[in-house]
Parts: sequence; C-alpha cells; structure tokens
Amino acid sequence: MVLRLSKLFLRTLREDPVDAEVASHRLLVRAGYIRRAAPGIYTWLPLGLSVLRKVEAVVREEMDAIGAQEVHFPALLPREPYEATNRWTEYGEGLFRLQDRKGADYLLAPTHEEMFTLLVKDLYSSYKDLPLSLYQIQNKYRDEARPRAGLLRGREFIMKDSYSFDVDDAGLDASYAAHRAAYLKIFARLGLDVIPVAATAGAMGGSKSEEFLHPTEIGEDTFVRSAGGYAANVEAVTTVVPASIDFSNAPAARVLDTPDTPTIESLVAASNQLAPRSGADGGTWTAGDTLKNVVLAVTLPTGERLLVVVGVPGDRAVDLKRVEANIGSFLPIAGEIGLEAANDGDLKKHPLLVKGYIGPGRALGEAVLGLEGSTKLLYLVDPRIVSGTSWVTGANVDGKHVFGLVAGRDFTWDGVIECTEVREGDPAPDGSGPLETARGIEMGHIFQLGRKYAEALELKVLDQNGKQVVVTMGSYGVGVTRAVAALAESNHDDKGLSWPRAVAPADVHVVAVGRGEDIFEAAEKLSAELEAAGLDVIYDDRPKVSPGVKFGDAELLGVPTILAVGRGLVDGVVEIKDRRSGEAENIAVDKAVDYVVNAVRSR
Amino acid sequence: MVLRLSKLFLRTLREDPVDAEVASHRLLVRAGYIRRAAPGIYTWLPLGLSVLRKVEAVVREEMDAIGAQEVHFPALLPREPYEATNRWTEYGEGLFRLQDRKGADYLLAPTHEEMFTLLVKDLYSSYKDLPLSLYQIQNKYRDEARPRAGLLRGREFIMKDSYSFDVDDAGLDASYAAHRAAYLKIFARLGLDVIPVAATAGAMGGSKSEEFLHPTEIGEDTFVRSAGGYAANVEAVTTVVPASIDFSNAPAARVLDTPDTPTIESLVAASNQLAPRSGADGGTWTAGDTLKNVVLAVTLPTGERLLVVVGVPGDRAVDLKRVEANIGSFLPIAGEIGLEAANDGDLKKHPLLVKGYIGPGRALGEAVLGLEGSTKLLYLVDPRIVSGTSWVTGANVDGKHVFGLVAGRDFTWDGVIECTEVREGDPAPDGSGPLETARGIEMGHIFQLGRKYAEALELKVLDQNGKQVVVTMGSYGVGVTRAVAALAESNHDDKGLSWPRAVAPADVHVVAVGRGEDIFEAAEKLSAELEAAGLDVIYDDRPKVSPGVKFGDAELLGVPTILAVGRGLVDGVVEIKDRRSGEAENIAVDKAVDYVVNAVRSR
Repeated sequence: MVLRLSKLFLRTLREDPVDAEVASHRLLVRAGYIRRAAPGIYTWLPLGLSVLRKVEAVVREEMDAIGAQEVHFPALLPREPYEATNRWTEYGEGLFRLQDRKGADYLLAPTHEEMFTLLVKDLYSSYKDLPLSLYQIQNKYRDEARPRAGLLRGREFIMKDSYSFDVDDAGLDASYAAHRAAYLKIFARLGLDVIPVAATAGAMGGSKSEEFLHPTEIGEDTFVRSAGGYAANVEAVTTVVPASIDFSNAPAARVLDTPDTPTIESLVAASNQLAPRSGADGGTWTAGDTLKNVVLAVTLPTGERLLVVVGVPGDRAVDLKRVEANIGSFLPIAGEIGLEAANDGDLKKHPLLVKGYIGPGRALGEAVLGLEGSTKLLYLVDPRIVSGTSWVTGANVDGKHVFGLVAGRDFTWDGVIECTEVREGDPAPDGSGPLETARGIEMGHIFQLGRKYAEALELKVLDQNGKQVVVTMGSYGVGVTRAVAALAESNHDDKGLSWPRAVAPADVHVVAVGRGEDIFEAAEKLSAELEAAGLDVIYDDRPKVSPGVKFGDAELLGVPTILAVGRGLVDGVVEIKDRRSGEAENIAVDKAVDYVVNAVRSR
Repeated sequence: MVLRLSKLFLRTLREDPVDAEVASHRLLVRAGYIRRAAPGIYTWLPLGLSVLRKVEAVVREEMDAIGAQEVHFPALLPREPYEATNRWTEYGEGLFRLQDRKGADYLLAPTHEEMFTLLVKDLYSSYKDLPLSLYQIQNKYRDEARPRAGLLRGREFIMKDSYSFDVDDAGLDASYAAHRAAYLKIFARLGLDVIPVAATAGAMGGSKSEEFLHPTEIGEDTFVRSAGGYAANVEAVTTVVPASIDFSNAPAARVLDTPDTPTIESLVAASNQLAPRSGADGGTWTAGDTLKNVVLAVTLPTGERLLVVVGVPGDRAVDLKRVEANIGSFLPIAGEIGLEAANDGDLKKHPLLVKGYIGPGRALGEAVLGLEGSTKLLYLVDPRIVSGTSWVTGANVDGKHVFGLVAGRDFTWDGVIECTEVREGDPAPDGSGPLETARGIEMGHIFQLGRKYAEALELKVLDQNGKQVVVTMGSYGVGVTRAVAALAESNHDDKGLSWPRAVAPADVHVVAVGRGEDIFEAAEKLSAELEAAGLDVIYDDRPKVSPGVKFGDAELLGVPTILAVGRGLVDGVVEIKDRRSGEAENIAVDKAVDYVVNAVRSR
C-alpha cells in the first residue's frame, strides 16, 4: 500500500492543542492521528486508525492463541442484567444511562460481565462444555469525572475484554494463568514495557487480581516495587505484620491528665514530660507509640452516611484510597462509596467521641468503640496493631490519655484493614527488600471473579456427578485505545512520534525532496518497488512543499524508516534515515529497496 | 483455520425463536450466529462475527478502490453539531439521547453528516484538497418504534457510511457516480441481487438520491418498476403529466344543487342524473371527472398543527407516505412531521370548509382555498390537475357542487405535489412501459446532499480565484448488519442456511460420521490438509453425536461444501456434497483436498 501525502486526509499542526497535557495527546493530535470530538471522546483519522488496527490485530492473535473465541456484544444494553448484579447502582455516576422511546432503561456498557455470563448460561449447561474463554474487541463507555490526557482516560474507548468460565477453582487458575501469559506476550510484541502488579479487585468483586502497569511519570496509578521483584499497586500492598507479644507481664494501663494535647505532636511532647517511658527504648515516646483513631464518614450507595473509626500508629497517615479499596467487606452493601474524614457535625452525633482524645474504650469501661457499647461504631485497625502491642491513646475524656493500653488485653476491634500510607523504604511483604514508589498507566487488568456474577445470574452447569454447580469466572481487559496512547507516550522525542515497527502506520516514509521531475520519478518508482516488496509506504509526493516541512512532517509522523530522494540522485544515491536513532546513510538507488526491506525484517 | 465443533462456542437450536418473523432471523438464531440482547439489539457469536467481518472486508475493499479513506468516529456525540443542522430536533423519537454526569446533552449517532462536515472544515481549507471521500464502518443507533425481523431493522447496527466533499456540482456528480458504481460492485461480490431505485431524500435533505433495494417479499419498502428498466420507490415515482388544454372556449362553470352527495360515488351518481355530460365522452361522469379536496393535518416539529388541502382526481386515493415525502418544501420548517386526515374538530375551526362539499373557491367568490382570502389554507394539487382541465367539485356550500370548474381559469393552487397512490399499470415517467409494484429491503442509499450541511456548519474552501465557496457533499450508506440478514434471507432452504462462498464462515465443513478411530483420524488429517491448502475449515469432531445430528447441523450452518468421512472410508472414499444443490459425490480420499480446493476456487 502506498499512501500519498498529496491525497491522504491529513493536516499536521505546528501548534500544540491547548487542552493537551501529555506528549502522546499533543503529538497524536499534531500528527493528525486523532481529533477530539467531545471531552474524552476522539475521532480516529486514517493514520491513527491504522495504528489502532495493528494493536487490535496483535491482541486478537494472542487471544486466539490461547483458544479464546471472539464474539461481539452490543454497547447499548438493557438495565436488567446489571440490576441483577447491582452494578446498575454500584457504578454510580460513571455509567452512561439512557431511556428508549418507551421509557425502558438502558446503559452504555463499561464492561460486559453480565452479558457474557447470560450468554454462556443461554448456550451451555454441562461441565463438558468448559473450560471456555470468550473475548471481544469493542467500544466501552465510562462517564469519567475528569477525562484527561487524550486517549489515556477517555469516555468512549476500545477494550479487549475476555471472560473465562470454569467448573472449579483449578480451572480458573489455569484460565487466569493463560491470560496472564498472553498479556505478557501482547505487551512484549507491542514493545510496551509493563509490570504485573498485585491489585485489589475493586468494584469488580472477586479475589485474585493483577494490573499490567506501564511505568511512566505521567501515569495515574501509583505502585510500589522492590529490587527483588515485588510489585503491587498502593491499594494492594500488604503490611509486614509484626509478631504478637506476650502481654502476661505487661503493666496495667493508666489514665493520665494530658491537657491541651489534641494532636500527636502535642501528645508526644507532653508524654515525655509526664510519664517518661520505661524500659530498653531509652525512655522516649515517639509518634509510633501512639494509637491514632481517625473517624471516617462512608457514604453508602444507598446514600446513608456511616461512621467508621480506624486505629493506626500515630506516625502513619491514613490513605483514603487504600481504605476505599479494602473496606468493602466490612460494609453492609457493595458498591461505589463516598469516603472522607468525618466532620464536627458527624462527631457531635456521637457525644462519647471526644475530638482529639478518641481511644478504644472497652478496657476503661467506656465502650465508645469496639464490639460492644451504647454508641457502637465499626472499629478497624492497621495490621501493625497486633496482640500485645502497647499504646498511648485517647481516653475518651477531654484532656486525658491512657498509657500502656495493650491490644488484645485492653481493647479489641471489628477487623484489620490495610489503611495507612505506604512509604518508600517499607519492607516488601515477600521479603524482597524495601519498597520504592513509581507511577504507571494501567494497560491491562486480570481478575479472578470467582462465582459472584455466576451466582447473581444463576450460571450453573451439571458436574460429572450430575449435580448443579455454580461456574467460576475470570475477567480480563486490555485497553486497546490506551495502548496506542501509551505507545506514543513511550516512543517520541522532541521532533515527534517514533513508532515501534509492530504498530507503525507504515514501514517506510519516502520523501521527494526538491522540484526536479527526475526526483519525483525516482521517488515514485522506489515507492512502487517498496510496495511490491510487501511494505506499507507513505510517499510524500506533495509538489510544492518545502524540504523543511516535508522532513518535519516525516519526523512528526514517526514512521521508523525515512527514505529521502533528493540532490544525491545525480550521484545515484538516496538517504535512508532511522527515525529513532537519527542515523542516516547514503545508499545507492538500486540497493535502497533491499536496504529498507532488511531494516524492516531485522526489527 | 480449523474450527472444531467440540470447542466452538455454538449451540444449534431445533426450535424457532418465538419472536422470529422471517427466515433470516429464525435461521441465524437457530444456527448460532446471533443472539438477541434486547429488542433490535443483537450479539454476534463466533460464526456470525466471521460472516459479518467478511461482508465488512468486501465493503472496505470497494471503498478503498474508489479512493475513499477510512476514519472512525465516536458513536457517542455531543448535541451541538446536530443542533446546528436542526437534526437534534428533526430526528424526533428515533434518536437515542442522553446526558453525561454534568448534564450535557449527547446522542448516539444515527448517521454522521455533521461530524464529517466539521472534521473536513477543521482540516481543509482549499479547493486543492478536494475532491475527498471519507468513510467509516461503525455502530449506528436508531430508536426504531418497531424493531423487527432480527437484524433487518435493528436499533444498534453496523453501517458503512461515507461522505464526499467537492467544490462544485460536477465534482459531486462524479463522486456520486463513483459510489454508485462501487455499491453495484459490492452487492455483486456479495451475491446480493439489488436494484437501484430513484428515491426521495427524506430527512437527509439534498437532491438526487437512489436506494439499492434487494427485492424480496418480506421487504419493508414498496417500489415500482417497469419492464423497460425504470425503478423508483413509491414516494419518488413521478406522475406522467397530461398536456394543458386550451380553455378559451370552455363553457362557464355552473353551480348545481346536489343534495346528499358527500362522497365521490354519490356525487357521480347524482351528476349523471342532474347534469348529463356534454361532448364526445358519451355523456357519463366518472370519478375521474371529479376533483376531490382532502384536508390533511400536519403536525410540525414545533408541535403546531397545520391544515393543508390537497386536490386530486376523484378516482385516486391520497397516499400519505407520498405526501409526507414531498410536502417538505411547502412547510415553514424542516423536520420529522406527523400527518393524518383532518378530523371534525379541525374542520370546525374553518367554517367555510363544508365537509363533503369542499372546492377551490376563488372563481366562486369564496376564497376558502388558494392564495387569497380570510381563511387561507395551503392548497396543493396532484400533477394531473393541469391548466384547462375541467372538474366537478364542491361548491363550499352544503348540498351544492360546481360543474365545469376549469383549472387555471376558475381556480389556482399554491403548488403541485406527488400525493396520490401509484397503481400497477400507471405509466413509467420515462416512457418505459406500465409500472408493476414489488417489495424490497433497502441495502444501501446514496444521496446528493448538496450544500445543506456545509452551509449549516460553514464548511467553505477557497476556490481557484481565492473566493470562499460552500462545499457540496454526498452521503452514502450500506447496511452491513442488514446485508448479513439479507444474505441469509436469500440463501436458505428448509434445512438451513446456504451461504455464498464470499461470506461463508468457512470453506468446507468436515463431518466425522460414526465412531471408528480410523474415521476420526482420517477426518482430522483431511481437515489439517485443507487448512494447509489455505482453506477455512469447520470440523465436526464431536465424538458422541449421531450422524443425523451432525448432518443436520452441517445443513443448518450452511457452509457451501460438506465433506463427510464415514463408512466409505474402508473403500477409500469420502462423500463431498454441495450444500446448495444437494449433489453428492464419492471421491477418493487422496483426491478430496484437491476436489474441495477446486470447488472453492471455481465459485
């Protein structure tokens, strides 16, 4: 195929679009690959569509290779299946909802778990039909609050989503592993560096889950990794839990007057004056010795506002994203929640919560927190609060704190939650060294959904004993649109895009430089020969465009090899340049096609 | 590629789906090609998706062949561009509308004229950039009042829509002709019989327009054709207009008492008694001598109800679809209108309209109709009401008619409209003989839009003289989803589907018949060899399925060639059957692959 720039529907821009925050967005618009139609909604121009189709083809081949079968669902779907799994409500404002002319509710699907589940239920009924993996490459819709960064976070975008169906957990493990391996192959073929990181399942439900993050400064996802190979997103990092401590000889807790100490700093200072610490630690209290109890307000999907108290070491901040990712199992209802620090109004409704002096109260006879008491609130603690640890914490009385309050002896909790900030230098949970933080773009996500959807929609099959069993499922996504953006992001320089060969819109960009008829004839002939050799060619045949503009456009468009036919022609040579390295060579005209073909093949 | 039925995500059904009215719908569901997700919204299963992709590929190749360039627009679009052309309103209930989380209006696009126009405006500015044709193959949405017949009239469906941009009318003619020729090629390659018929532009605006109709009894579109090659849809048929008549010697009109003659029949009977007709016609009045004035109520897009009177020969019924298609230019506002016969309440608001005795009144001093008068109503007439024709018609007084009222002398009209029924036997407007009616499915539609959209959205380019000129556009659609249905509709028998080779989901369907290991081994080997020969193979390798079920499924799926490996194997032969003709031959095993390859190549 030869795309002639005199005909190609393309206009490159010298100026960056005003709304472009990141390089991929800026360059994809400037190079005429995409065009904004509405916030987070883009049109694909010919060159962009070509790159998109190449990414899709790679994804499709690797899905087919693991035996997944392609189907295609509608994007416009009825409410009912999403009602059955509660996602109609859980998705909150992120779901595009609409009604048809009869007033029936519809949605633009963000993912298709429900529909795949129902389809398999419709067609299959026996364990003999499983395992089964189905996929589609299809438009998805999410009404993002802040669509940003061009294609990186759009509201209409293309995903490959696949779903596995197995009769038992071992089957799910195998399907999950097959997808995981396929994903690593896909990203390797695309030339896109990704790290699989442990993730939480979030709104999808289910158990095991990993994200494939492409590390980049502009990524929206923060994750941590160790030199020894551990990687997890911040929500999913697990704390290294200290051993419990025998508290049989621990001294009794005592309440001391600590006037004007509503903050950890003031408490630590006062503690060191009032009650010098005994023992081997040198007699100094630090923030890490205090137990900070933070009251959070959770807005449930029903709109109800629920107070929850988390107890954390005083030297750690609460990380609301980690709370949000992990609090689901403690709440009475699933779905998208609101989460914020409780305000004074919230606290006033619970008069036993004394701001600045809140503590777990059971041991002291004031059951504000914990399992019992008149004003019962859900009390969750950081994993570091293990049995036998001793704390300085609020006494639930203005100006008083309790010293030596022992976990498991003097107070209990409703549950343990990963809720505090992860810090650089924290140990990796697998012992592989200290953690460092990094940022990345989520390129793929794989989930062991388990039986949540199959149960809600009653997808069962007969097992070998003729018994009905609920099918167990996996759900696996690749952001296809986003992959184009990530590839642009990680393959550009200050002159423009610089595509990996696997997805470049053409193999070679031929430029006719100058005005001589001989030049255009030679460029034309070379383009035809390159096409005949099976290559995709962009040929800049524009007659009245200056060499500077032509070269500028070639660098901006980012085809890996640039072949310039110009003055050298009188000496029988053309210039062949590698877009990425910038290295250029003069090559004899009659060797040029072979040279380019070799460059393409040796990628 | 070998698709094994032991693995393929497929379940054929013995029973017809309850909601299936037509064969294509019934068989595509029964054979496991599609599945209903909601009314008019379908999921593509693996075999259906394969057929769909093949249809798309043919369309894409022929679009590329005429130099059209592929782009891809979002389906979810903002309201503003559709507001600028008034289609946001004009589309009425047929448009899926929704709001995002910020309350901004969006729609699911039914077609993309606005977006293409804006995109070209955004990129191009000179006549040198034109001509340009762009296309996409993309999901479209229409909230049909009665989605029906499976894929034939859906609410989410795939269309190829293209748009041409030219600087002048000659350019538009050329772009239109190129698309017309490409469409004929597309349908020929798909093996789908189509007739291009003259059409009205309808809501799209513009001038010249043709539909590509696939003739079939189950088609929703009625059209007419002559033996001499004329074809038009009923809305677009033009009447053969009689010559005007010199009325200088025509007798004066006279009003007669015609009590109790509110209908044409009663009027004709009374006329023949009261005022025997003079002249060569034998003295008998017929319905064709009367001028029937029918009052219609038009509901404008604004909701306003407007009365319009159409005058037609008494022997012809008014065809509301033809009125609707042609009345647009007489109305004060464009858009989707409601149209029905006026009711008594409407008539009462115009006391000079005497039900059963309505006539054009100017000559008689009662200006109910026509251009002047106190109760002016729009008065349109059938093309047969030419100057000099003489009529019996209402005198606008109860029980009175006027005889010998001469068109052009005694009354005038606001306009001429194609509004009466087209009858079998009416002459074709091009003199190619009498018309016959037929039914068809609209497979494609091409429009000369002209400058309507470019004007509304200000798409102008500089012409050769440096002057800004409005671009002229064409719009061209092929129903891709619908083509799959039409192909199924016209390629089936009572046993199932019978695909043309160009779109069949596989080239050959290999059936292992029986239980012998040798049979499965041979079938497996043949499948592999057929695949190696470049063919797509469905291989029914299901071990415990009876031969009857296997052959039934093969006939239902409709792959053109069926290769059965069974008892004949001991004699070294397999059976190769042509699905369509039913002819079967025993072929030596070692000749089977060549035989099938030849059958595929000689299609």
